[in-house]
Amino acid sequence: MSAILTRNSAQVLLLAVYPRNFWYIAAMSDEIGSTPFARKICDQRIVFYRKPDGQPVALQDYCPHRGLPLSKGKCEGRSIRCGYHGMLVNEYGECESMPQQPNVGRLAGIHCYPCKDNCGYIWVWVGDESGVDESSLPNMPWKNSNSISTSNSNPQWTFAGGVFHLNCDYRLLVDNLMDLSHETYVHPESIGQTEIDEAKPDVAFDGDNVIVERWMNNITPPPFWAGLYGSNEAVDRWQICRFYPPSNVHIDVGVAKAGSGAQSGNRSLGISGMVVGFITPESATSCWYFWGMARDFDVDDEALTERIYDGQKKIFYQDVGILEAQQENILQNPDRRLANLDIDSGGNHSRRIIEKLCSSE
Amino acid sequence: MSAILTRNSAQVLLLAVYPRNFWYIAAMSDEIGSTPFARKICDQRIVFYRKPDGQPVALQDYCPHRGLPLSKGKCEGRSIRCGYHGMLVNEYGECESMPQQPNVGRLAGIHCYPCKDNCGYIWVWVGDESGVDESSLPNMPWKNSNSISTSNSNPQWTFAGGVFHLNCDYRLLVDNLMDLSHETYVHPESIGQTEIDEAKPDVAFDGDNVIVERWMNNITPPPFWAGLYGSNEAVDRWQICRFYPPSNVHIDVGVAKAGSGAQSGNRSLGISGMVVGFITPESATSCWYFWGMARDFDVDDEALTERIYDGQKKIFYQDVGILEAQQENILQNPDRRLANLDIDSGGNHSRRIIEKLCSSE
Amino acid sequence: MSAILTRNSAQVLLLAVYPRNFWYIAAMSDEIGSTPFARKICDQRIVFYRKPDGQPVALQDYCPHRGLPLSKGKCEGRSIRCGYHGMLVNEYGECESMPQQPNVGRLAGIHCYPCKDNCGYIWVWVGDESGVDESSLPNMPWKNSNSISTSNSNPQWTFAGGVFHLNCDYRLLVDNLMDLSHETYVHPESIGQTEIDEAKPDVAFDGDNVIVERWMNNITPPPFWAGLYGSNEAVDRWQICRFYPPSNVHIDVGVAKAGSGAQSGNRSLGISGMVVGFITPESATSCWYFWGMARDFDVDDEALTERIYDGQKKIFYQDVGILEAQQENILQNPDRRLANLDIDSGGNHSRRIIEKLCSSE
Repeated sequence: MSAILTRNSAQVLLLAVYPRNFWYIAAMSDEIGSTPFARKICDQRIVFYRKPDGQPVALQDYCPHRGLPLSKGKCEGRSIRCGYHGMLVNEYGECESMPQQPNVGRLAGIHCYPCKDNCGYIWVWVGDESGVDESSLPNMPWKNSNSISTSNSNPQWTFAGGVFHLNCDYRLLVDNLMDLSHETYVHPESIGQTEIDEAKPDVAFDGDNVIVERWMNNITPPPFWAGLYGSNEAVDRWQICRFYPPSNVHIDVGVAKAGSGAQSGNRSLGISGMVVGFITPESATSCWYFWGMARDFDVDDEALTERIYDGQKKIFYQDVGILEAQQENILQNPDRRLANLDIDSGGNHSRRIIEKLCSSE
Repeated sequence: MSAILTRNSAQVLLLAVYPRNFWYIAAMSDEIGSTPFARKICDQRIVFYRKPDGQPVALQDYCPHRGLPLSKGKCEGRSIRCGYHGMLVNEYGECESMPQQPNVGRLAGIHCYPCKDNCGYIWVWVGDESGVDESSLPNMPWKNSNSISTSNSNPQWTFAGGVFHLNCDYRLLVDNLMDLSHETYVHPESIGQTEIDEAKPDVAFDGDNVIVERWMNNITPPPFWAGLYGSNEAVDRWQICRFYPPSNVHIDVGVAKAGSGAQSGNRSLGISGMVVGFITPESATSCWYFWGMARDFDVDDEALTERIYDGQKKIFYQDVGILEAQQENILQNPDRRLANLDIDSGGNHSRRIIEKLCSSE
Repeated sequence: MSAILTRNSAQVLLLAVYPRNFWYIAAMSDEIGSTPFARKICDQRIVFYRKPDGQPVALQDYCPHRGLPLSKGKCEGRSIRCGYHGMLVNEYGECESMPQQPNVGRLAGIHCYPCKDNCGYIWVWVGDESGVDESSLPNMPWKNSNSISTSNSNPQWTFAGGVFHLNCDYRLLVDNLMDLSHETYVHPESIGQTEIDEAKPDVAFDGDNVIVERWMNNITPPPFWAGLYGSNEAVDRWQICRFYPPSNVHIDVGVAKAGSGAQSGNRSLGISGMVVGFITPESATSCWYFWGMARDFDVDDEALTERIYDGQKKIFYQDVGILEAQQENILQNPDRRLANLDIDSGGNHSRRIIEKLCSSE
């Protein structure tokens, strides 16, 4: 497991930078098929594939015979065959057979990771298996597909999204999503506006969830929202960020006719979406960012879905540039500490929950 | 010398990964001429060139004056002149002269490596010079040239081959050549066939040589051999791999009419070739692979020579992809050990001989 | 500060490789404007920009809030605004303001480096500020501009030059400029000629300056000089290299009609130039090379200025190839020491002065 080495007078401590006993998203469902797929998740090199029944498999990407990545081989029924000497490894990571080698079953196998297909994503468990609990897989009513414009079993919502690889500590991305005041500076031409900085958000807690809620009432919508709302008339705009362990942030966003009561719960004169951020550590300084947006309006308008997808991709890619530059600068300045202001409160509370979860492991 | 650091409770040992007191191939003969040529061999940066009499020279690639690689300079008679300030270093690595600097002969020189041109290759000795023995240079009756289609002083054989750089421990390549069961999986469209896996090979010893012999009698030839043999009729097929120190593997391969007595020594109704593999460590995790194939049939057919060269190059390049992925995965999994099955016996015996030679140094 | 780690029996010493209490050139004046400009100088990551009054500013390139490089942000009056959350940092490196964050002024600021625009270059001071002395900024009568063909307030001289990044210890470049015998080997087709090697230079001292003076009288001018001089007739040629701390070398070069008395001080029948080399360490093994040439003849001939600029750029780029190969070879041969001959005397004396200055810090 990735960790940061800290020298503390007389002892050397290894501090985990992410908790292990959680489901992490490894891939979008349609990334995994009957061709082996390699991805590093939480410092584990894993090969993913689907069995003929469609169920996903996640195995340590290492042939128990001579170490070739199994992802260089081929799927064969429920098993995977190494591309070097033909070792067949079954879905449990056991050496199943090899031509003319009757006793390979006695060889040490490889780690088999619990793996589930849920709500359009492939989820993997890298921690202590005694803690595996399928019921802890998130339920997402607004998320039924991970592709653009695919049919949606929940007719009230439509979703589109993608995945980015980022060379940064996943917690910098949590910070980013829990403090949207950056929109004014990083995304000025789309979703940013100075009213964001001016509206002080509320921070609340719900168990291990952190909620940062900001209302900007009676403002002109920024270009992205004006386009979706179909008007430049005054709106009440909201952003309700929710962090939940291990490292996910979902943001309830929207605008409604100014004064129509959205903040009191009446969104009937508005439109809303759910900005989805699932963040999976790859290493101490890199992560996978599964992003997307679900919406509850014009759900059958595929052109609109594509337009939102393109817009969000462009906006989030601006964040990638910022986060990777920030990470590199932090590594180059090991003696400096990040400062903490009011606006960092949501990210800091989230980091404290992550720290607590790591310590408890 | 490259080595692997091993921590053994109270002590730190440096284990050599290759023996030094052997001739290693540094280059194909036609790679070296009167222009300086730089190559790292056994962790030594060496500059090679030929003197006017054609004899090759191998010197430490470091100007004794200010450290510029001598390979950036120019040959001048039997000597080489540095490209920075004109130091002339002679064929023995001594500082010979420098304009207006009468006393440079007193400066410490650089290492001069014993170096020979033999059978189309340039051989270099990086070890203890007291052990240099020219008579230990291999004699190869089937190898008179290192180029495609050059005239052959031994009319019974024709040879063609090349050189690859591989980012892997040279011993992984020895393993590869001493266990051809991988052909079924890595080269299925050319020389692989399931009959290889099914035919258990014999392993024998001849001093520090290891011999792995496999006969597949009365089988359909795979595409590569069917093409050379000119028929899809049943054949007896053989592969006789011989490892000899420090790190070379030659493979006697061929097919003959099924039942015509090839295994008993009568190859008159068959065709045979010698797959040549000379492997030279560059570092602990990289090597130079001098590969080629000699044959005793249709020796004057230059189009055939080129076809075999192209085919072998393509096949061996598939091995490069496998071996580099294997090496990287091994480095990423330091806690795993390679498993050893029957088929690995030839490679393992070869590794034991290498280990013995390293220890005895 | 970059340093070389030396283990000396019982202790570990950090030896500085460059002195800090000097003005170093960070950029050419026209590289810095109202857009943030990032450059690493003496192991410090610095952002440069100009205030509305044209004065340059040099700040640690690190936002005091969350560590993004300030160079990713925007200039705003005399201040710079971070591109992530809008922190405004003033010209002194203090946190000036941030939307809705009234108390940011209390946050620890960032280092503000003394910075001056002088003679066409931006100079920065990375050392102890108590030693800052503007009067120690060099005065260069022959240098009034850093661009090609710009107007020159001193009508007696014209200058053109550029900047290179080199992956080598800056002291290797000092060596290079203090021993021009390399011209014969590195620049044979332009300024090199065997007469350079043959003419033994004089080495003299002037406080912490080192002067290497070479006269080659009654020789044929090499191509570069023949072109400028407009003739292949015999000339007296001179090269007077002056090193002055911390790491600058200027070379008075020229040719005059043979026997016309140039060596005695009468240059009236010749042409002369000043080869300018300002060298700024970036790290222990990389540097910035601000090079150029000023001349006192045909000063209004812009086509000639461009021709000299192109010629010098090509010549100095040959040095880049040599110096980077030398640096890499030195790093690969840690057990070898550079040899010191007569011709290295100028560079060695310069190194000793650098060493003395480092020790005194």
